Amino acid sequence: MTMQDAHTRGTGWHKSYVTGPTGSRPDLRVPVRQVHLTDGRDVTLYDTSGPYTDPSVDTDVRRGLAPLRENWIIARGDTEEYPGRPVRPEDDGLRHTAPRGGLRNLDAVFPGRPRLPRRGRPGRPVTQLAYARRGETTPEMEFVALRENVPVETVREEIAAGRAVLPANVNHPEIEPMIIGKRFLVKVNANIGNSAVASSIEEEVEKMTWATRWGADTVMDLSTGRNIHTTREWVLRNSPVPIGTVPLYQALEKVDGRAEELSWDVYRDTVVEQAEQGVDYMTVHAGVLLRHVPLTARRKTGIVSRGGSIMAAWCLAHHRESFLYENFEELCDILAAYDVTFSLGDGLRPGSIADANDEAQFAELRTLGELNTVAKRHHVQTMIEGPGHVPMHKIKENIDLQQEICEEAPFYTLGPLTTDIAPAYDHITSGIGAAMIAWWGTAMLCYVTPKEHLGLPDRDDVKTGVITYKIAAHAADLAKGHPGAQEWDDALSDARFEFRWEDQFNLALDPDTARAFHDETLPAEPAKTAHFCSMCGPKFCSMRISHDIRRAHGGADQDGVDQDGAPGAAEGSEEEIRAGMAAKSAEFAAAGNRVYLPIAD
Amino acid sequence: MTMQDAHTRGTGWHKSYVTGPTGSRPDLRVPVRQVHLTDGRDVTLYDTSGPYTDPSVDTDVRRGLAPLRENWIIARGDTEEYPGRPVRPEDDGLRHTAPRGGLRNLDAVFPGRPRLPRRGRPGRPVTQLAYARRGETTPEMEFVALRENVPVETVREEIAAGRAVLPANVNHPEIEPMIIGKRFLVKVNANIGNSAVASSIEEEVEKMTWATRWGADTVMDLSTGRNIHTTREWVLRNSPVPIGTVPLYQALEKVDGRAEELSWDVYRDTVVEQAEQGVDYMTVHAGVLLRHVPLTARRKTGIVSRGGSIMAAWCLAHHRESFLYENFEELCDILAAYDVTFSLGDGLRPGSIADANDEAQFAELRTLGELNTVAKRHHVQTMIEGPGHVPMHKIKENIDLQQEICEEAPFYTLGPLTTDIAPAYDHITSGIGAAMIAWWGTAMLCYVTPKEHLGLPDRDDVKTGVITYKIAAHAADLAKGHPGAQEWDDALSDARFEFRWEDQFNLALDPDTARAFHDETLPAEPAKTAHFCSMCGPKFCSMRISHDIRRAHGGADQDGVDQDGAPGAAEGSEEEIRAGMAAKSAEFAAAGNRVYLPIAD
Repeated sequence: MTMQDAHTRGTGWHKSYVTGPTGSRPDLRVPVRQVHLTDGRDVTLYDTSGPYTDPSVDTDVRRGLAPLRENWIIARGDTEEYPGRPVRPEDDGLRHTAPRGGLRNLDAVFPGRPRLPRRGRPGRPVTQLAYARRGETTPEMEFVALRENVPVETVREEIAAGRAVLPANVNHPEIEPMIIGKRFLVKVNANIGNSAVASSIEEEVEKMTWATRWGADTVMDLSTGRNIHTTREWVLRNSPVPIGTVPLYQALEKVDGRAEELSWDVYRDTVVEQAEQGVDYMTVHAGVLLRHVPLTARRKTGIVSRGGSIMAAWCLAHHRESFLYENFEELCDILAAYDVTFSLGDGLRPGSIADANDEAQFAELRTLGELNTVAKRHHVQTMIEGPGHVPMHKIKENIDLQQEICEEAPFYTLGPLTTDIAPAYDHITSGIGAAMIAWWGTAMLCYVTPKEHLGLPDRDDVKTGVITYKIAAHAADLAKGHPGAQEWDDALSDARFEFRWEDQFNLALDPDTARAFHDETLPAEPAKTAHFCSMCGPKFCSMRISHDIRRAHGGADQDGVDQDGAPGAAEGSEEEIRAGMAAKSAEFAAAGNRVYLPIAD
Repeated sequence: MTMQDAHTRGTGWHKSYVTGPTGSRPDLRVPVRQVHLTDGRDVTLYDTSGPYTDPSVDTDVRRGLAPLRENWIIARGDTEEYPGRPVRPEDDGLRHTAPRGGLRNLDAVFPGRPRLPRRGRPGRPVTQLAYARRGETTPEMEFVALRENVPVETVREEIAAGRAVLPANVNHPEIEPMIIGKRFLVKVNANIGNSAVASSIEEEVEKMTWATRWGADTVMDLSTGRNIHTTREWVLRNSPVPIGTVPLYQALEKVDGRAEELSWDVYRDTVVEQAEQGVDYMTVHAGVLLRHVPLTARRKTGIVSRGGSIMAAWCLAHHRESFLYENFEELCDILAAYDVTFSLGDGLRPGSIADANDEAQFAELRTLGELNTVAKRHHVQTMIEGPGHVPMHKIKENIDLQQEICEEAPFYTLGPLTTDIAPAYDHITSGIGAAMIAWWGTAMLCYVTPKEHLGLPDRDDVKTGVITYKIAAHAADLAKGHPGAQEWDDALSDARFEFRWEDQFNLALDPDTARAFHDETLPAEPAKTAHFCSMCGPKFCSMRISHDIRRAHGGADQDGVDQDGAPGAAEGSEEEIRAGMAAKSAEFAAAGNRVYLPIAD
């Protein structure tokens, strides 16, 4: 593969693009973060920030991003444009109120180029799953193959087997395709969304671009307040990553918050509305059944999933089976026509350590396994959502059961939080559980911010949540032995050992904060190249001593000591070692036994 | 056991004391944090903050804390006071410079009541290990038994078996005894210490009280700059928790930073100096042997432990075996005379993911196992230090090997960090590894702050590091099924489910930040008692719906549905459930199908 540089910079990093082998389609340009090291080498990192970090691209949130996939979708010839469902005031929750906040100066829902919605021709499932099963490799599959640096056939096989999903609604051509599956890099989702309490459209779009800037692989818009439709439109038209939603939230707004007034008609109408806008995956709480509700009665924290409690309330109110469960096959046909991916929600996930792995949770999981089979029959890509609050010793059972019951469909978990005692630090209580469950096979992690349980995340909380979860995801990639994952750690550790501070900062998940922390102790510019760490100070530095040792002993290789590089080789041949050491001791002494570190060095 | 309240407050929490059964010694008063819930119940939490949080105690850092243990030590009659080693200018690294910073306005090293150092009478090991082996239960053991809420015999047995240590130097009578062992609550250590670069004596004392305020169980003073002796004296006289040090750091200062000029004499002199001051445990890098050094030559990050690299440099310079290893038995006799606990340092711990679990690391661990046996023969309490940087899949091997090689001596690990890519977030990369290794048996965790690898932690970093590690430690207590550990989580989850916001804040690891985050979204005072979460807003709340469900279904118990409380009971009797549900549906409907949440409620 070759590199196409958006622009060049002497130092630091810049946005670059990986293209396929010569002869492959020129419109396949996979974005990467190219880090330039001071020793001349480059390190290529996965990049989710979209065109916003490419100075050669002129972005405008009022125009939206370029429809990268449009030609690919049209070329398949299996979709058709149609007038689509008219946008109604209640779509923005404005039935009882006049428009306000966020719509000012806008003559339409979105000022950018209007586009008719598109859907699969009658009876034609247009999902990546359907293509993969037919043995077709789409440009989207080629894109992720380049992005993950794996053979495209691996991508097709994993999708065809249902072990991976490639969320890509035909009405969201702006995305840079990505894949979610245990054979690939662990992904991170960031939730945004306004509520009745606060936040505006611009803020949500800003949160989305901010989250992807720091590494969010997908973003869920969980808005529940006003302007839901308009906020979603702006987020979709400007998002380089797949967007997920929970249609039930908007449906509830349409019936004025009365769960018992929900119906299949209102829900279906909302799903179509969002599918036409381009939502890539939808959380559907179809696994909450009437018979499951009693199982939650004695829980310490009952039902904490909003979708789960809405459906439970509906079931209680009507004493009928869930309308989502009873109309699931029709729902599958709708999603298949747009290639919307299912995220089967865990409406009964535990909301406290005490409720983890209880019968309510696992009864729902068994139902999700049943629905997973139905969805696959309709060629709908499907992932399964998981908890929640789970103590460490009960985490593995969750992923093992899910993989068994759901035929290895991608698991998508929130945390889990490993203790309940640290509100304001639940990005950490859950980052611990997230790293573990991802190591054991979870494909995507839904982030948790410091504001969890307390309030709506602001810009800083979103960044902290994303960084924390990128750490959990990468720690899992390492533990799974994901090919190439450790190169990043090795590059940073090399820079650390060689006192290349700028390289250390540029390779860090958060270069800005790393640099700022370092400067607090050693503000002077020269300090960034000085050969000592601020922990030990200029006088003494363990790293420096290691260099002396390497110099003193590294040469010993020529004496045949430790020759094969296998540490074990040094053992057993005490004599050889002593000989080599003695031979080098003179050299070490000659060098003045330097454990000091001249600041000028 | 009974409670003695230092003072009473209507709400929130206050410092209280647990005393032994009637008839037991009245001077045994174990501090606890007594949280008062608005529902009238109390929750008792382990407290490390010392007298500083007891308004009835008048503390003064210039006078120091009351010598709680003094009478216990004297009563044993096996120690004697003696003139002690004179304090020399070089003890404060002042050989080449005039005193400055930190010593101003002080006519002595410490203005508080002068006290002659104390040591065991000739040939009398005065360690808690020696007492435990003789079958004696000391007041210190009774204290920790009350503190951990376990039988005192369990405490004595664990110490006698070497599976736990109770660090308590006879010259540090100010401490509130605590125990470190896998059968007890997982403990957290916070490092403080000035360096040549920055920080003053007052700052270090403040960091110590600040760290214990947030839950640090022990504090290590790793000062390397000036005023080492004086800083340590102030920290010791004001510390309610055991203090640990790395004597090698001060010894190096005494030879002006020239590792090759270190000698057993200088080191021994430093150990005696610190033992007389009252240091409770000392990190000793006696496991770094001459033959181990070559094993580090090809590492990615060489030797990152300062103590390890000092000893490696000394070995290389002299091409002789480590003076710590060769004089270890004499060192044991010194520590036994003051009851200083060994923390056998892992000088060759991996400093990067690439170097984890390599031959250098495990070769040293085998040597530590050998030294552990020697130390025990001399009745010296001993714990073993562990890594470092280790990917998740290689963590368990570390604790399993250590427990096997070191006969279950307490493991005391730094993290481990599970990835190298996140400088500025290493409290999180390491918090993940810390929680896991503690679950698997590590007894104490050494915290890592956000400044790790970048600079010296300030007040905020210390707090963040301690809170993060309390989370890891508690998550491990839960996973280990430690008796009573989950009560804390349950109390907080109950408060959350019942919208008792103030109780939630008061039970949180960090009440201040939890309250502040909540107020950002809902500043109004009433909001703290309002029955809705700021995430959902007043209109809709999943928790509230769960209450409706509980109300609607909880009553179903009277119909015999789900009677035994075992969720499984609901299964298999579909009819019963439907009957019970139907019976209750009317009640639910009668209640107006309330999924709303009146703000005034």
